[in-house]
Amino acid sequence: MDVSEESAKKIAALQAKLDKKLGPEYISQRPGPGGGPKLTYAEGWKIINLANEVFGFNGWSSSVVNITTDFIDFNEESRRFNVGVTAIVRVTLRDGAFHEDVGYGLLENSKSKGAALDKCKKEAVTDAVKRTLRNFGNLLGNCLYDKSYTQEVIKIKVPPVRLPLSHGIAIAP
Amino acid sequence: MDVSEESAKKIAALQAKLDKKLGPEYISQRPGPGGGPKLTYAEGWKIINLANEVFGFNGWSSSVVNITTDFIDFNEESRRFNVGVTAIVRVTLRDGAFHEDVGYGLLENSKSKGAALDKCKKEAVTDAVKRTLRNFGNLLGNCLYDKSYTQEVIKIKVPPVRLPLSHGIAIAP
Amino acid sequence: MDVSEESAKKIAALQAKLDKKLGPEYISQRPGPGGGPKLTYAEGWKIINLANEVFGFNGWSSSVVNITTDFIDFNEESRRFNVGVTAIVRVTLRDGAFHEDVGYGLLENSKSKGAALDKCKKEAVTDAVKRTLRNFGNLLGNCLYDKSYTQEVIKIKVPPVRLPLSHGIAIAP
Amino acid sequence: MDVSEESAKKIAALQAKLDKKLGPEYISQRPGPGGGPKLTYAEGWKIINLANEVFGFNGWSSSVVNITTDFIDFNEESRRFNVGVTAIVRVTLRDGAFHEDVGYGLLENSKSKGAALDKCKKEAVTDAVKRTLRNFGNLLGNCLYDKSYTQEVIKIKVPPVRLPLSHGIAIAP
Amino acid sequence: MDVSEESAKKIAALQAKLDKKLGPEYISQRPGPGGGPKLTYAEGWKIINLANEVFGFNGWSSSVVNITTDFIDFNEESRRFNVGVTAIVRVTLRDGAFHEDVGYGLLENSKSKGAALDKCKKEAVTDAVKRTLRNFGNLLGNCLYDKSYTQEVIKIKVPPVRLPLSHGIAIAP
Amino acid sequence: MDVSEESAKKIAALQAKLDKKLGPEYISQRPGPGGGPKLTYAEGWKIINLANEVFGFNGWSSSVVNITTDFIDFNEESRRFNVGVTAIVRVTLRDGAFHEDVGYGLLENSKSKGAALDKCKKEAVTDAVKRTLRNFGNLLGNCLYDKSYTQEVIKIKVPPVRLPLSHGIAIAP
Amino acid sequence: MDVSEESAKKIAALQAKLDKKLGPEYISQRPGPGGGPKLTYAEGWKIINLANEVFGFNGWSSSVVNITTDFIDFNEESRRFNVGVTAIVRVTLRDGAFHEDVGYGLLENSKSKGAALDKCKKEAVTDAVKRTLRNFGNLLGNCLYDKSYTQEVIKIKVPPVRLPLSHGIAIAP
Amino acid sequence: MDVSEESAKKIAALQAKLDKKLGPEYISQRPGPGGGPKLTYAEGWKIINLANEVFGFNGWSSSVVNITTDFIDFNEESRRFNVGVTAIVRVTLRDGAFHEDVGYGLLENSKSKGAALDKCKKEAVTDAVKRTLRNFGNLLGNCLYDKSYTQEVIKIKVPPVRLPLSHGIAIAP
Amino acid sequence: MDVSEESAKKIAALQAKLDKKLGPEYISQRPGPGGGPKLTYAEGWKIINLANEVFGFNGWSSSVVNITTDFIDFNEESRRFNVGVTAIVRVTLRDGAFHEDVGYGLLENSKSKGAALDKCKKEAVTDAVKRTLRNFGNLLGNCLYDKSYTQEVIKIKVPPVRLPLSHGIAIAP
Amino acid sequence: MDVSEESAKKIAALQAKLDKKLGPEYISQRPGPGGGPKLTYAEGWKIINLANEVFGFNGWSSSVVNITTDFIDFNEESRRFNVGVTAIVRVTLRDGAFHEDVGYGLLENSKSKGAALDKCKKEAVTDAVKRTLRNFGNLLGNCLYDKSYTQEVIKIKVPPVRLPLSHGIAIAP
Amino acid sequence: MDVSEESAKKIAALQAKLDKKLGPEYISQRPGPGGGPKLTYAEGWKIINLANEVFGFNGWSSSVVNITTDFIDFNEESRRFNVGVTAIVRVTLRDGAFHEDVGYGLLENSKSKGAALDKCKKEAVTDAVKRTLRNFGNLLGNCLYDKSYTQEVIKIKVPPVRLPLSHGIAIAP
Repeated sequence: MDVSEESAKKIAALQAKLDKKLGPEYISQRPGPGGGPKLTYAEGWKIINLANEVFGFNGWSSSVVNITTDFIDFNEESRRFNVGVTAIVRVTLRDGAFHEDVGYGLLENSKSKGAALDKCKKEAVTDAVKRTLRNFGNLLGNCLYDKSYTQEVIKIKVPPVRLPLSHGIAIAP
Repeated sequence: MDVSEESAKKIAALQAKLDKKLGPEYISQRPGPGGGPKLTYAEGWKIINLANEVFGFNGWSSSVVNITTDFIDFNEESRRFNVGVTAIVRVTLRDGAFHEDVGYGLLENSKSKGAALDKCKKEAVTDAVKRTLRNFGNLLGNCLYDKSYTQEVIKIKVPPVRLPLSHGIAIAP
Repeated sequence: MDVSEESAKKIAALQAKLDKKLGPEYISQRPGPGGGPKLTYAEGWKIINLANEVFGFNGWSSSVVNITTDFIDFNEESRRFNVGVTAIVRVTLRDGAFHEDVGYGLLENSKSKGAALDKCKKEAVTDAVKRTLRNFGNLLGNCLYDKSYTQEVIKIKVPPVRLPLSHGIAIAP
Repeated sequence: MDVSEESAKKIAALQAKLDKKLGPEYISQRPGPGGGPKLTYAEGWKIINLANEVFGFNGWSSSVVNITTDFIDFNEESRRFNVGVTAIVRVTLRDGAFHEDVGYGLLENSKSKGAALDKCKKEAVTDAVKRTLRNFGNLLGNCLYDKSYTQEVIKIKVPPVRLPLSHGIAIAP
Repeated sequence: MDVSEESAKKIAALQAKLDKKLGPEYISQRPGPGGGPKLTYAEGWKIINLANEVFGFNGWSSSVVNITTDFIDFNEESRRFNVGVTAIVRVTLRDGAFHEDVGYGLLENSKSKGAALDKCKKEAVTDAVKRTLRNFGNLLGNCLYDKSYTQEVIKIKVPPVRLPLSHGIAIAP
Repeated sequence: MDVSEESAKKIAALQAKLDKKLGPEYISQRPGPGGGPKLTYAEGWKIINLANEVFGFNGWSSSVVNITTDFIDFNEESRRFNVGVTAIVRVTLRDGAFHEDVGYGLLENSKSKGAALDKCKKEAVTDAVKRTLRNFGNLLGNCLYDKSYTQEVIKIKVPPVRLPLSHGIAIAP
Repeated sequence: MDVSEESAKKIAALQAKLDKKLGPEYISQRPGPGGGPKLTYAEGWKIINLANEVFGFNGWSSSVVNITTDFIDFNEESRRFNVGVTAIVRVTLRDGAFHEDVGYGLLENSKSKGAALDKCKKEAVTDAVKRTLRNFGNLLGNCLYDKSYTQEVIKIKVPPVRLPLSHGIAIAP
Repeated sequence: MDVSEESAKKIAALQAKLDKKLGPEYISQRPGPGGGPKLTYAEGWKIINLANEVFGFNGWSSSVVNITTDFIDFNEESRRFNVGVTAIVRVTLRDGAFHEDVGYGLLENSKSKGAALDKCKKEAVTDAVKRTLRNFGNLLGNCLYDKSYTQEVIKIKVPPVRLPLSHGIAIAP
Repeated sequence: MDVSEESAKKIAALQAKLDKKLGPEYISQRPGPGGGPKLTYAEGWKIINLANEVFGFNGWSSSVVNITTDFIDFNEESRRFNVGVTAIVRVTLRDGAFHEDVGYGLLENSKSKGAALDKCKKEAVTDAVKRTLRNFGNLLGNCLYDKSYTQEVIKIKVPPVRLPLSHGIAIAP
Repeated sequence: MDVSEESAKKIAALQAKLDKKLGPEYISQRPGPGGGPKLTYAEGWKIINLANEVFGFNGWSSSVVNITTDFIDFNEESRRFNVGVTAIVRVTLRDGAFHEDVGYGLLENSKSKGAALDKCKKEAVTDAVKRTLRNFGNLLGNCLYDKSYTQEVIKIKVPPVRLPLSHGIAIAP
Repeated sequence: MDVSEESAKKIAALQAKLDKKLGPEYISQRPGPGGGPKLTYAEGWKIINLANEVFGFNGWSSSVVNITTDFIDFNEESRRFNVGVTAIVRVTLRDGAFHEDVGYGLLENSKSKGAALDKCKKEAVTDAVKRTLRNFGNLLGNCLYDKSYTQEVIKIKVPPVRLPLSHGIAIAP
């Protein structure tokens, strides 16, 4: 339980970061299921970027504990497929702390069974990564479950950012 | 069984925190099943935030020990689905102490099997996280099982807090 | 088998605590099965609070060794469900001593299969936690199996305590 | 095989305790099966209290090695259930010595399958704890298998002790 | 293979004890199966007491390696049950030496299946404990397989000992 | 949590590389499924080259955690095969950090079952390698999930590079 | 391969003991199967006593590696049971040397299935213990397989020894 | 993460080698499936030779993680066999870095089932070795997935080399 | 690969012993199967005695790796049983060298299934012990496979040795 | 990654040996399947001899990872058997480097099922040993996959060597 | 990879021994299957003797990795059995080097199923031991696969050696 003073400072700084809530530039909305109210969420790539920013690219690890196709239903009439996939993901920090959580990938009325499986499996894993990361605090998504927060944040307008392209690294010729 | 004086103080401080009961700002209510009395509970994100506050973001870990779909019943008449999912979660503190407990996700009369499974699985895990954390003391939810407490706490009015948005961290451009 | 004098004192103090019987404020009663005599028991949250008080929040751990749904019987006539669930729980102290015991969750005449499973599974785990903890001594529930004690303790009146609310910890804004 | 003099003394003292037979205040009787002769036994909570007294609350551990429902028979005529459950329990002392033994829970003519399972499973575990503990000596129940002893001990009258209630520990308000 | 002189003496003393045969006060007789000659045996509790005396309460451990119900036969005519159970038990001494052996529990013409299972399982384990312990020498029962010994020992009369009751330990009030 | 200053610098340099987004020379496009909008992606060999550039050829490892053929459907009418394959891949860095993710290989209307399996299996593994690597940051593909980025980057024209051939290493004669 | 001089002497003395053949007082005879020639053997308890004498009570260990009921045949006509049981036993010396061998228990024409199983299982284990021990040399039974020896030894008359009873150890009163 | 300067140099030299692309003498072409465009590839033995050249004969290891026969289809009409085999191979470098990848062996219209299996299994393993090795960089085959490179390299003519035979090592007479 | 001079001498002496062939006193003969030529063999107990002589009673260990009943065939006509049993045995020397080999037990035309199993199982194990031991050299039976040797050795007459009985060790009275 | 200078020299010498191609005295030819072109190969015993020469008799190890009989087809008409067997072999060098590869044994039109299995299993293992060894370089067979090499080498005539017989070691008399 | 000079010499001497080919006194011949050309082989006992001579009785170990009965075919017409058995054996040298290989036991037209199994199983193991040992070099049988050698060696006449019998070791009287 004893850590060096320096380590304690680093941990406190990380804690402070994680306590912050997501700014509006991280927030997206999509229609709720069955015509219900809009869902407020953050896209997977943003949360992954945040995890890399907070913990560093070698500061967190993730594994697919389990992935299960719950059903592949074929509707004889519409000749469409409904597919549902569950994933459980574990995210582990460098110091050993970890969380596991569940994600879901669902597609209804797909013409192609394969395309549906492709999409659902990836969606399930990304969804699980997000749900697992949110256990580490507000910044990684826990704030999105706070309705009083989401009601406010979606009202804030974010000016469209025309991102300057930082040319990465050339392919070795 | 011997710990340094400093450690003993930290532990005592944690114990004191955990002995406290939840203030009214953590309390929610929803209708009981079958028109019964209202149920008093705390939302999952609040309990997760509290766990991060008490133990630190790297002070507790959680794993999904087991997740089982108990039933997916299809009512031929209403063409709706009833789905029930059980999850067992383990929460481990940095010093090795841990608890495991069970959570449940239930949805009745869902039009979509997939949406029901999605909701139930996540609900089951979050429910299990909550039930497991409450073993650590009043603050993490054990007080909610004390009826004499809940009868009182729901009478206290909490002024609606218009939460100031703390813009988190900008996405790396 | 040799322990320091200090440790021996701590252990003796714990032993003395555990030898004490529960005061009347811990005691509840409910109707016995089939109209039989009242059952005297302590509510789960009280026993969990006592365990935290005696051993400390990080002094005891619990795990769900096994949870089994024994039956889900549907009565075609009454259209109600009877559900029975068994749980085995292990409680481990910091120094390695442990007990395992069994708990049961039972619900008869439930309209909803899912609600019954939800209730039974949680009841079974909590029941097992209680039965396991009582192995550590009178204070954690073993005294409740002593009929000469329960006959006396239920006669003592406990004045209704209007518990002052200790506002816990505010949610990080 | 070498132990310190002090340890040897402690062990000898424990041995002397365990060699003693149970006083009449530990003895109960119940009708034998099928109208046979009365059975002499000690209640589970008394033996558990003795184990805590002899070994200390952290000096013995118990685990449910196995629990098996042997049968759930439904009599179509009487519409009652017969249930039989077997449990195997291991009791381990702090120094590693251990015993395992079997216990049984049996209920015949129960109106409720669930109530019967609940009772039988708990009874089986408690019975197994008792049978396992008796392997450590007379005091923990081995004397009860000695008919010449039980014939004598049941003749001794124990004055009804009106136990003074030692108010335990108040619930943290 | 080298032990201290002191240890060698202790072991020799134990060996001398174990080489002795059982005195008549340990011997019982029961009718043989099918009206055959009487069987000479020692009751389980006596052998367990001897093991505790020779090895000490923490000097021997026992485990139920296996317990199997060989058959539960129901006779339609007599409406009685025949039940047979096999147990294998391991007894381990503190220094690691061990034996395993088999025991049997058999009941024929039982009215109750459950009572028969209860009795047979316990009988099988106790029988196996006895058979296993006898491997350590005459005193723990090996002498009982020597017909020339049993023929003699049963002729010796043992005066009925009216055992003085040593009131054990009072239940903690 | 403590690393040498030199290591910290190396890690910071790596982090800076990984934060950069892919230049247009890494970007490809293909028609979306069902005539939908074009998909923007990076070819597998480019991402593998980047991983080797960033981490070094011995700085990252990959394993096929699981590969499953989800379906091989034969259309009796068209006499063509639809094949879908799922792969889960783990990528581990030298310092132990790792990610796992899922990839998919899908081919519809293939004349040859074998050719379809061949293609799908390889596609699934490569796809999974790509999805797993992107967890390490923008440079390894996470930027491709950012629609505002892909909309811009595809507009930038990359002059066709006539790559000079660097004759590698002659075959040992 | 190097041992102390003292150890070497002890081992040589043990070897000399084990090389000796059994004196006539250890020898029994029983009718051979199917009216064949008499079988010469040593009773199990004698061999166990010898093992304790040679190796010491804590110098050898035995375990039941496997016990299998080969058949339980019921003859409809005679209404009798034939039962055959195989046991494999391992005997291990303190220095790690061990042997495993097989034993058999057979009973034909038994009225009771349970009694037959009881007898066969015990017989099989004892038989296996004997066959395993004989691998250590003549004294523990290997000489019994030497027909030229058994033909001679059975001719020697052993005067009936009226064994003096050495009263063991009184039961703790 | 710290390596000696010398090691760092060696690694850098290896990296430089691996970054190079294959010269035209390593390149082969074969007709694409279904009359499609030609496929550009390197033969297995060349890549194995390169691996031995780069890493040394004892610098890389390979194992067949899995080999599965996907199908053996017999066409009743043509009386020919179609066979498809999948292999997963792991290649491990001396310093522990590794990759795993999948290979495929396919043969259609084979007269002999056995010959087809023989060919497909070997082809699958060799194919997997190649695909796995290419993860280490351009030189070991990653460049072959770069269409702009393969379009160029195949235009370069390689003069037929009449390899001088280096007589190896005579068979020990 | 380096051993002390003393050890090397001991090993050389053992090797010299093992290189010797069996003298005629170890040789037996029995009719070959189907009226074929006589089989020359050594009885099991002799080989076991030799192993004890060469390696010492604690110098070799044996285990039954596997025992399988290949068939129990019942001839309806002759009402006899044919039984075949395979055993695999491992013999390990003190220094870790070991061999495993197979043995067989076969009985045809047995009236009793049980007696046949009894005999075959024991025969198979003993046979396997012999075949395994012969791998250590001529003396332990390898010479018996040399036909030129067996043809000679069976011609040598061994005078019937009237073995003097060395009275072993008296049973502890 | 650091080795002594001496070791480095040895390794370099081994590498140089392994880079050489096989001289014509190692080369054999057999008709290709289905009347196709001749196959050029090296016999198994030659490659094994080379492995022993290069690595030393104790410098390489081999294990049969898996052996599977793919099919045993019986042609009712020709009454002949077709048998196919797959083997996977691992070859490990003393320093831990290893390869695994697959081999095949195929026999068509065999009169005897057993003879076919015998031949195929051995052929499969030897084939796998060869294919595995070739991964270590040209000398151990990789050169045989180079068609430009095999076309040349088969043209070189090897004078029939009348091998002088080196009488090995006489059988110990 | 570094060994002492002395060890290196020993190894070189062993290598030289193993490189030699078998003298004619080790060679046998038997008719080939189906009236084909004679097969040249060495008997199992000779190879085992050679292994003991080369490596020493404690210098090599063997284990039966697997033994499988491939088929037991009964010909209804001839009432004879065909039996085929496969064995895989591992031979390990003291320094850890090892090989595994396959052996086969085949018997056709056997009157007795049991006798056939007995013979085939033993033959398979011995065959596998031989094939495994030959991997260590010419002397242990690899030369037998060289047809140019076997053609020569069988022409050399070996004078029939009338082996002098070296009386081994007398049975302990």
